[in-house]
Amino acid sequence: MLVTLAFILPFAVQAAHPNLVITPADVSEMRKAISKPGRFSKAYSDLKSQVDLQLAQPINVPVPKDGGGGFTHEQHKKNYQLMYNAGIVYQLSQDKTYANYVRDMLLAYAKLYPTLDVHPARKVESQNPGKLFWQSLNEAVWLVHTIQAYDFVHSALSAQDRKRIETKLLKPVALFLSEGQPSTFNKVHNHGTWATAGVGMAGYVMNEPEWVEKALYDLEKSGKGGFLKQLEELFSPQGYYNEGPYYQRYALLPFVTFAKAIENNEPQRKIFQYRDGIVLKAIDTTVQLSYDGLFFPINDAIKSKGIDTIELVHGVALAYSLTEAPGYLDIAKQQDQIILSGDGLKVAQALDKGLAEAYQFDAVAFGDGSDGKQGALVIMRSQLAGDQAVLFKPAAQGLGHGHFDKLTWQFYDLGKEIVSDYGAARFLNVEAKFGGRYLPENESYAKQTVSHNTVVVDETSHFNGDVEVGNQHSPVLNYFETSPFGSVTRAHIDTAYQGVQLKRTMALVNLPELKKSIVLDVFDVVAEKAHQLDLPLHYQGQLIDTNFELSVSTQQLSALGTKNGYQHLWLKGRGLPKQGLAKVSWLNENGRFYTHTSLVDGQEEFLFTQIGANDPHFNLRNEQAFVRRVENSKQHHFISVLEPHGEYNPSEEYTLDAESQLTELGYSQQDELLLVDITIAGKSYLIAINQTAEGSVNQQFQYQHQSYVINGRLAVFALNDDEE
Amino acid sequence: MLVTLAFILPFAVQAAHPNLVITPADVSEMRKAISKPGRFSKAYSDLKSQVDLQLAQPINVPVPKDGGGGFTHEQHKKNYQLMYNAGIVYQLSQDKTYANYVRDMLLAYAKLYPTLDVHPARKVESQNPGKLFWQSLNEAVWLVHTIQAYDFVHSALSAQDRKRIETKLLKPVALFLSEGQPSTFNKVHNHGTWATAGVGMAGYVMNEPEWVEKALYDLEKSGKGGFLKQLEELFSPQGYYNEGPYYQRYALLPFVTFAKAIENNEPQRKIFQYRDGIVLKAIDTTVQLSYDGLFFPINDAIKSKGIDTIELVHGVALAYSLTEAPGYLDIAKQQDQIILSGDGLKVAQALDKGLAEAYQFDAVAFGDGSDGKQGALVIMRSQLAGDQAVLFKPAAQGLGHGHFDKLTWQFYDLGKEIVSDYGAARFLNVEAKFGGRYLPENESYAKQTVSHNTVVVDETSHFNGDVEVGNQHSPVLNYFETSPFGSVTRAHIDTAYQGVQLKRTMALVNLPELKKSIVLDVFDVVAEKAHQLDLPLHYQGQLIDTNFELSVSTQQLSALGTKNGYQHLWLKGRGLPKQGLAKVSWLNENGRFYTHTSLVDGQEEFLFTQIGANDPHFNLRNEQAFVRRVENSKQHHFISVLEPHGEYNPSEEYTLDAESQLTELGYSQQDELLLVDITIAGKSYLIAINQTAEGSVNQQFQYQHQSYVINGRLAVFALNDDEE
Repeated sequence: MLVTLAFILPFAVQAAHPNLVITPADVSEMRKAISKPGRFSKAYSDLKSQVDLQLAQPINVPVPKDGGGGFTHEQHKKNYQLMYNAGIVYQLSQDKTYANYVRDMLLAYAKLYPTLDVHPARKVESQNPGKLFWQSLNEAVWLVHTIQAYDFVHSALSAQDRKRIETKLLKPVALFLSEGQPSTFNKVHNHGTWATAGVGMAGYVMNEPEWVEKALYDLEKSGKGGFLKQLEELFSPQGYYNEGPYYQRYALLPFVTFAKAIENNEPQRKIFQYRDGIVLKAIDTTVQLSYDGLFFPINDAIKSKGIDTIELVHGVALAYSLTEAPGYLDIAKQQDQIILSGDGLKVAQALDKGLAEAYQFDAVAFGDGSDGKQGALVIMRSQLAGDQAVLFKPAAQGLGHGHFDKLTWQFYDLGKEIVSDYGAARFLNVEAKFGGRYLPENESYAKQTVSHNTVVVDETSHFNGDVEVGNQHSPVLNYFETSPFGSVTRAHIDTAYQGVQLKRTMALVNLPELKKSIVLDVFDVVAEKAHQLDLPLHYQGQLIDTNFELSVSTQQLSALGTKNGYQHLWLKGRGLPKQGLAKVSWLNENGRFYTHTSLVDGQEEFLFTQIGANDPHFNLRNEQAFVRRVENSKQHHFISVLEPHGEYNPSEEYTLDAESQLTELGYSQQDELLLVDITIAGKSYLIAINQTAEGSVNQQFQYQHQSYVINGRLAVFALNDDEE
Repeated sequence: MLVTLAFILPFAVQAAHPNLVITPADVSEMRKAISKPGRFSKAYSDLKSQVDLQLAQPINVPVPKDGGGGFTHEQHKKNYQLMYNAGIVYQLSQDKTYANYVRDMLLAYAKLYPTLDVHPARKVESQNPGKLFWQSLNEAVWLVHTIQAYDFVHSALSAQDRKRIETKLLKPVALFLSEGQPSTFNKVHNHGTWATAGVGMAGYVMNEPEWVEKALYDLEKSGKGGFLKQLEELFSPQGYYNEGPYYQRYALLPFVTFAKAIENNEPQRKIFQYRDGIVLKAIDTTVQLSYDGLFFPINDAIKSKGIDTIELVHGVALAYSLTEAPGYLDIAKQQDQIILSGDGLKVAQALDKGLAEAYQFDAVAFGDGSDGKQGALVIMRSQLAGDQAVLFKPAAQGLGHGHFDKLTWQFYDLGKEIVSDYGAARFLNVEAKFGGRYLPENESYAKQTVSHNTVVVDETSHFNGDVEVGNQHSPVLNYFETSPFGSVTRAHIDTAYQGVQLKRTMALVNLPELKKSIVLDVFDVVAEKAHQLDLPLHYQGQLIDTNFELSVSTQQLSALGTKNGYQHLWLKGRGLPKQGLAKVSWLNENGRFYTHTSLVDGQEEFLFTQIGANDPHFNLRNEQAFVRRVENSKQHHFISVLEPHGEYNPSEEYTLDAESQLTELGYSQQDELLLVDITIAGKSYLIAINQTAEGSVNQQFQYQHQSYVINGRLAVFALNDDEE
């Protein structure tokens, strides 16, 4: 039987090339496809034209000199990409010109590499310098690409050239990245993934089965490190990577690449079944962590990064190939980029056939940490009034790129950010902006708690801004539930500040009768001692109105504070609304109005701010926020509703419902039942949330002499206005 | 002969209905079209569904009470639109339900109207109150629509109903709007156009040829007022309306409507040939005054208004019908709206056949004023590096909605504003924002000179901010020329400030070798006495770098000044660059970098500002500018180049040419020859501009021991670097 045969054959016997991500069978199908019109042949001819232009240039394999961003660094990056591309064009065109170009470049590297010591621009304190690059991470990425390029041209090379390339270049690189840097190779970390992927694939191509074993189980084959351990620990059971989606999509590529190579060489390892299909889950979760094509910008994230990133193009091609789920085609369509691989061909052909169906974005809580229990990242969604999403973040710190933003939230509507997160303070690769690296303001503002939408105690960031402490403590997700009433979640953390409990309940509540959803937010702070409590809300748009008086600084602005991000906020105005409802309305560029209504006790002061103080190089975007502040308080409920409403259409010259329709808001508790009554657009509702530890079914309660039953965490009841 | 026959028949004989914008022949074609799939039948069924919903509601013809925006005002507006729509649906469906609805509403009006005195909410000082509306302008718009609706249902009415509607309603309204308000009816002004259009069309429908004569030539039939005089005076010879495009598109509708009715009733008047085809020119110019679908926002303009405005949908349908030029179909496609008329049908059918071709946007100087000699509005365009446009405004004041912005400019690239104009300070119809009217900041900021990109003398606006004075003085356009070298223009004004001449030369220069265009700007100020001269530049984007030191206010911000708009600008930082090149670079959201390089003498201080001071209600957008300031100067050349460059692509993680490539910039004059030498991206060019009064051909000159010949206003020569 074929299956058994495959299983018992040691892979070392197979000598077909290529056989990493792309197999001879793939090549055969792809060669057929390029002669027919369609997405695949278009992608092929586009790549071929680009490669042809590059092949007209002389080969340049410079002696390593520059660090990241410098000339030799960039040239070696271009080289591996070009070898990969020329290699695949050779496989498809069967034109030896391309193979010869790859060969010549590999030979140039084979000549250079034995002469190299560690890179001259390595960081002195670095544990992992490269030789071609200043850090071995880039060297591993080079190997991941170059070994595939070599595999593509293998059959076109003379035995002599093969020997030279393998002994002078590829084997030394693979040994340098494994035996040569055990701490990185064995580490359960993204850098380790690139190293194990490169070395493992080199093992397949150059018939070194021991290398594959080491790549999978660590240098000692102990299983304490290596690719499988990385698959086990770097993702949560649902496939969430705890640095957040911006880094998740980057981390994804070596997983996707090496896993596919393992599957093609040793299907008996059932790599795609490993840990209940963690590779597919990691890809799918990356897609889920997006809104309108862009990743939710939590932690250090550049906001324009989205699902069309090349790493996820590879990921989605694999996901479609594994599942044939038509939703992935919807994503592939938006990516608008076809990979020249067997999986890419499947995607292209399915798209050509019009098989795409809408990808289903879910309301979901992604448990954080390898066990999924170190907090969670929660996404709530509604389609009642256009595409709306709430992101709620009781997640773990997320290592060095994590922000001090426990229990923060964001809101999206009609394709735009409404309640926003600053993301990273960085102009990627723009030399004039701090060399294109993370700006100093990333530390001094973007990571600080006040730049998020969560409570700051005494103008100090969570964990006092210490990432080591942050990494040791995560919030607890109490529950998350979604039903026709909407989605509801609650989380708490007791360790962000000593002696202070932060608990937040958030719900995206559906009001189908009004064709709208509203966001309910109850933030409870309970402290041993009295503190100043600030709850900022960063909004995107033009302030339209407040229903309380503001004292606005019209002649002079000063910074709100002196440290922990407060030094970057200009204080533009302040107001102290009386007991009752405090409303702040703004207009977003999507043409919709938003009103944030707080139920206040007369103690919450509203501070209106703009980013930009202490910014001598104009590094920050001048965005707006308001901060609800309570002084000298041991306990406080911040209670609010965010209500999208109306439409501003100056083009067609009409404006609808520019004013908030929420006229009443009440809050009460019955044991562990949280009750909010609201009147909105003339209709009254009772929103009930069951906060008990275990949740419960069919819980009865009385409210204003009426009986109600709540079955689950969230329920919404229409109130009979006549009886009030 | 048929033509002669039409000519000698007095129109009074024709009794076919409808016969205003739409003729029986049109109706016959439209009835055929609605049974076939396509854009037209789609538009018809959309409108019919909408009308069906409205017809389910009871008729509401309230006693007039409220002013603009109030309930009775809005109801009467809705009513005329609904009668019009129901009327056209009746014509196409031949279903009497629709005619009966229009009849019943007309009868309700016929009952109400005789009981009305002038409107209770009229402005006390108003010369022209209405009866149904607070001002007669709205009443005229009501008549323009209602007379068409009546024409649509005429054949379905009993003689008795016709008589009642005509004698109790339509004739009294027409008389009220003509004899009843001679000053408005005879006025050469947009309000007069609506009145004459309504009354003239009423004359056609109700067989009152005298009314048509009066509509065309004024109440005395003198020709000093009336529709023809309006066509003659309200537009420049090229069809430019001097309040700017935002008001031009609004003014357009009664011209387009009444002209079409004249053509259908009395083709012998050759209305579309009148004044060398001014109606068509006015439509075409409105389209030309747009960039990427939006009108250039000069004067009081709401920035989101663009070519899809309903008035221009009517205009473009007419323009296509008159010319069959396929470029109008391109615009119609972008408008994505089909008018149910004979012209609309032609557009729909041509679009269905795929006949659209790209509309040609030109570089053009639109002379301002009825003679075209009161300054000009200049548009320069380039397609070398994506769609780029410069707007230069040596235009007349533009009446009450005009801004004090003589010789200002704007720049657009890749679909975005780069050097911008604030537009109007207004949130249309947003009650919380000053009742939705023009905000106080429209006067105190948006109209003031400092909110534009032109010279402010002694912190005082042009004409000292007096619109009456402004209306009496316009700049002089010295020349405008376009050639393969690019476009170049020069204008001056001596009356904006007493004893101060402002002269500006601007060029959009093509550098095809570099695949880019740059903007050259030379602003000369010559004064009798010493003044403070400010030249602001409002830029859209994030400041990236300056090549000179800035002293930035990091702890506290103050307003730049106290009046004329300066009180609204926070001063964020300042720098005094040394003699040589002073560069300011920013990054626009379109992903391109822009560097503004000034050739400075060590006297120009750069003040970096942000809008927002003295803005207690957060009414203003917080946009950025820098102001070049020279103190105590009688004469100054502000010399600069704006250079688009590079690309910021954080999504694909690359950044190209983030730094300005302009390394040298020199300026000299030889008699009336302006010479600028630049080195950009390693290439050196000499840009020559011939400033002589008459221009000249084949003028020779010497530059650095080389001979050159300039033929026309602008020439660009590649300099031989070896010989420098």
